[in-house]
Amino acid sequence: MDLAHHLDKDDLEGLDGALSSLTAPQIAAHLLRLPRGQRAVAFRILPKDVALAVFEWFDSDSAAELLVGLREEHTRELFEGLDPDDRVRLVDELPAAVVIRLLRDLDPHERDMTEAVLGYPRESAGRRMTPEVASVSVDTTVAAALEHLRAVGAEAETIYMVPVLGPGRRLVGVVSLRGLLVASDSQRVGDIASSPIAVLAEADQEEAARLIRAHGMIGLPVVDREDRLVGVITVDDAMRILAEEEAEDAARSAGTFPVRRHYLSTPLVDRVKSRIVWLLVLIAAATLTVNVLDYFEETLSEVVALALFVPLLIGTGGNAGSQTVTTVVRALSTDEVRFADLWRILGRELLTGLGLGVVLGLVGFIPAWFVAGPGIAAVLAISLVAVCTLATTVGAAVPLIASRLGVDPAVVSAPFITTIVDATGLVVYFLVARAVLGI
Amino acid sequence: MDLAHHLDKDDLEGLDGALSSLTAPQIAAHLLRLPRGQRAVAFRILPKDVALAVFEWFDSDSAAELLVGLREEHTRELFEGLDPDDRVRLVDELPAAVVIRLLRDLDPHERDMTEAVLGYPRESAGRRMTPEVASVSVDTTVAAALEHLRAVGAEAETIYMVPVLGPGRRLVGVVSLRGLLVASDSQRVGDIASSPIAVLAEADQEEAARLIRAHGMIGLPVVDREDRLVGVITVDDAMRILAEEEAEDAARSAGTFPVRRHYLSTPLVDRVKSRIVWLLVLIAAATLTVNVLDYFEETLSEVVALALFVPLLIGTGGNAGSQTVTTVVRALSTDEVRFADLWRILGRELLTGLGLGVVLGLVGFIPAWFVAGPGIAAVLAISLVAVCTLATTVGAAVPLIASRLGVDPAVVSAPFITTIVDATGLVVYFLVARAVLGI
Repeated sequence: MDLAHHLDKDDLEGLDGALSSLTAPQIAAHLLRLPRGQRAVAFRILPKDVALAVFEWFDSDSAAELLVGLREEHTRELFEGLDPDDRVRLVDELPAAVVIRLLRDLDPHERDMTEAVLGYPRESAGRRMTPEVASVSVDTTVAAALEHLRAVGAEAETIYMVPVLGPGRRLVGVVSLRGLLVASDSQRVGDIASSPIAVLAEADQEEAARLIRAHGMIGLPVVDREDRLVGVITVDDAMRILAEEEAEDAARSAGTFPVRRHYLSTPLVDRVKSRIVWLLVLIAAATLTVNVLDYFEETLSEVVALALFVPLLIGTGGNAGSQTVTTVVRALSTDEVRFADLWRILGRELLTGLGLGVVLGLVGFIPAWFVAGPGIAAVLAISLVAVCTLATTVGAAVPLIASRLGVDPAVVSAPFITTIVDATGLVVYFLVARAVLGI
Repeated sequence: MDLAHHLDKDDLEGLDGALSSLTAPQIAAHLLRLPRGQRAVAFRILPKDVALAVFEWFDSDSAAELLVGLREEHTRELFEGLDPDDRVRLVDELPAAVVIRLLRDLDPHERDMTEAVLGYPRESAGRRMTPEVASVSVDTTVAAALEHLRAVGAEAETIYMVPVLGPGRRLVGVVSLRGLLVASDSQRVGDIASSPIAVLAEADQEEAARLIRAHGMIGLPVVDREDRLVGVITVDDAMRILAEEEAEDAARSAGTFPVRRHYLSTPLVDRVKSRIVWLLVLIAAATLTVNVLDYFEETLSEVVALALFVPLLIGTGGNAGSQTVTTVVRALSTDEVRFADLWRILGRELLTGLGLGVVLGLVGFIPAWFVAGPGIAAVLAISLVAVCTLATTVGAAVPLIASRLGVDPAVVSAPFITTIVDATGLVVYFLVARAVLGI
């Protein structure tokens, strides 16, 4: 199925046919692969309800771009049709002037809901929740609750997890639609509700998403500081949040800023910008290795063969360090470990590094002997043991300390550790060389 | 809350109190942090229903370990209480003799269901589905369907996504419980059902989980080759699958084998084993750099100062390469790009690398001049441009080619690219040096 093909030939009927056989996320994926100009053309010929469904699958940047490019009435229609939480994600990316106009044109109820969500900080649970919640009172009967859910079921984002409210809209429990269905009609909702797991509106969106995953929930009530229900985050939002956070972590671990756009539509300048900052930081850190080598230049010019193993040695140290960083960052992010486990973890990683270093040193000794003689082979083997132990220990310590200082451990990326290990590894190498070779 | 504290003092009442204030996943997390011996002690004093709920949150390795360590009747009870899909995950980790005994003791219905799931290959959708599905016939009325769901609601894993079946249990549609609730009682289910999105039982579990995420589904029907319904994968299973796959990808991207155990309970031997293989592969690949340096040893001994910038240069190339690999692997895994986009992507990455190299070369030139004079500074600057361009292009090509060859692109990890780029980068560096410095 090639949308671009139909567009090139101005074959709108063929295009229409091609689109009608696809689901909304599939159409969104296809549209995002098109050049921007063609995207708006293809979008405009979608039937209204399809257009809305497809639009919800756009990343926020591309959605904002498209919205600005459409005719005004089309823009307004689309904006009105969105759920409050999707609307808000978009607002963050649109020019302020456009936002003000669009909000003004909303009907008062929709505007109130949108503004309520907009009141919470970016990346907070409140920002990602939907305020359109179907809730029931603690004193209702099961029959009345079911009746109510049937009435509002078409509007609310979810009716499978139903918050149970006491006086003053305070959250006192939750009941699942399944629980209501299997209960007898005359029971009081309060008697079958379970105690609620909820999240503060100001909490981090990732915390909310992790709670949903950890407890296998369909929806998570969001409350204010007085325990009043303000909204719900649903499991599909949680999956999206986790996917976004995963993408961010993956980008950071490779030393780039996350780009939220579709790969094929990110302009060159953005591509370079997302990567250059970390490369500059890393190259600045790498000048340490220049200093170390400069300091040992005499040793080096006396035994030039030492230079042969520099990339291999620091490469191995870097790899061992990356392995540890990734493992520890992951254990931190899944709450398997915390800062209090520092010494236990350092002990474990030190032993692991020692184990790895001994194996690598033994394996590397004989080939190195053939290339550069027994002296340098011994220097290499000893250095491998030292560098691996150093790399795993540093690789464990830095993310743990970062987490303690309130810095996201994922920012302390593998490349960063690698560069630190490079410089110290070189010092170790030359000190070992001086000692073993007597220079 | 410190479980180990209560256990050390043999304070079972305090322990009981501490446990009762926690949710199942929280208790599981605490138990997994305990040494193995203590874990069984703490587990045994949990009330039966709590024990079962907690047990479902154990990783399969630890669950199997615990099960083998408990008394026989306790083991049997626990095994019987599990859902068929959880039971199967456990079976994969238990010794065969234990499995045979446990399956023999199950009641026939439970055993049949478990064996049905066990019939599908590991990591397939069929292996992760639950066969306990609440489904309705296409010709039922809405009222009858709701009545049926009320009756089976307590047993089935989900009743929010209801498969609609035609003759011969063939899947002809799905209807949501919400859809049933808001419809009028006399409507025919077939008239309100939507066409089903389903997955083959033999399909990869990750494919199923991605479908659920992409479409924001509560559950996904699993069918056999004749389109007959065999089970359902629910959204909470999808979240678990995605978390597992994410952990695997993160491990691979750092060149380690995934360890599915809790970090603090992985023995030293397993820690070393999960990391040593890739380190050996990488160190073998790194001997290329030794060869290159050996080949250019004469150039090097003539201008020892060239050695000063070797770690900085190859480090930068490696970092630029990692950034690209991570970006492209991600774009592949989210289906933003595919092999057919090869040339488009190579063009983009080549330009990006060129851009990055030019900035880094300009920034590095002056400091390098101070350290090593204008000649070597020029060599460095030119090499940075070449190495960055090379690194981004190779970093894009290798995962794309891997995906074409049916190899998981995540296996072509950043460290692997780094090592390739190291060797070729050194060749470039010395060739540039020879040309510029006339040696």
